[in-house]
Amino acid sequence: MLSKGGKLPRILGIDPGIRRTGYGVVDAEGSRFELVEGGIVRPPVDAPLSERLLCIGEEISELIERRRPDCCALENVYYHKNPKSMLTLGQAQAAAILAAAQHALPVSLYSPSEVKQALTGGGRAGKQQVRYMVERILGQKISEGKALDDLSDALAVAICHAGRQSGAAALGAQR
Amino acid sequence: MLSKGGKLPRILGIDPGIRRTGYGVVDAEGSRFELVEGGIVRPPVDAPLSERLLCIGEEISELIERRRPDCCALENVYYHKNPKSMLTLGQAQAAAILAAAQHALPVSLYSPSEVKQALTGGGRAGKQQVRYMVERILGQKISEGKALDDLSDALAVAICHAGRQSGAAALGAQR
Repeated sequence: MLSKGGKLPRILGIDPGIRRTGYGVVDAEGSRFELVEGGIVRPPVDAPLSERLLCIGEEISELIERRRPDCCALENVYYHKNPKSMLTLGQAQAAAILAAAQHALPVSLYSPSEVKQALTGGGRAGKQQVRYMVERILGQKISEGKALDDLSDALAVAICHAGRQSGAAALGAQR
Repeated sequence: MLSKGGKLPRILGIDPGIRRTGYGVVDAEGSRFELVEGGIVRPPVDAPLSERLLCIGEEISELIERRRPDCCALENVYYHKNPKSMLTLGQAQAAAILAAAQHALPVSLYSPSEVKQALTGGGRAGKQQVRYMVERILGQKISEGKALDDLSDALAVAICHAGRQSGAAALGAQR
């Protein structure tokens, strides 16, 4: 799997949230991955919704301009018992998706179970198990304080997307 | 209530939806309102989510540049029995809110019951009753085929916002 320019495909993974949006950029070469940059967008807690969405959009845009990924993958969610959580998730998702689309990046969405399946071989794995596999696949510990899961989930969806693009066998071969 | 430039305040009302986003621009002078423009954004039905969100954002941006409203009001929803509907509503909302925020418009959100209360005096009014009051307040029939309710709701939230800004008494005095 090579991107148009002949270089390794660079994937931006995003785990959107209105309080914390995790992002991770990885270069993928078959079943080998290299972490380019990972972090968390933290919109100002007491700011109006419009400013928080602007913050997510602008920080993801700056990241895309700085790291120039070839594509973007996001975690999607189809159910949450709290309807308000679905609404705010949709808002944060849209801010990230729009930033990617405005830079003409193809956007793919994966359910949490698809991501877990791709990383651990099981659709019901816990967050800790996903993080363990992310660290093993990237060959390094990841750390982001209390927002560790948001960063881990963003990297996991990027790795999941790479596996889908190049065939799940390549990803499975490394494990 | 006058905007900074001394002209009548111009309000953009939006009823966001991923299939149809209603919009209405009204000029407000106390309890008198004039319809400037109203319509529906219809993102391409079969397009990926990213393109549909781009379509909403770009059409609302163009409208803002063409009509130069002073502020933006949207209908918010806190509950829908279908969690997927909350997610897509959040996505469409965010596309519209971001377009407004990128043009530095203040954004206000109102619940359906707040809008109904402001227009009809009752928080449980039906869509037809809201439309009746919108047409009466604007002094003209509104028409947008099957998307009539989306247009009517967008105009209603703009009128609700004007009432909130200038005091509910002014709006009530007209009825």
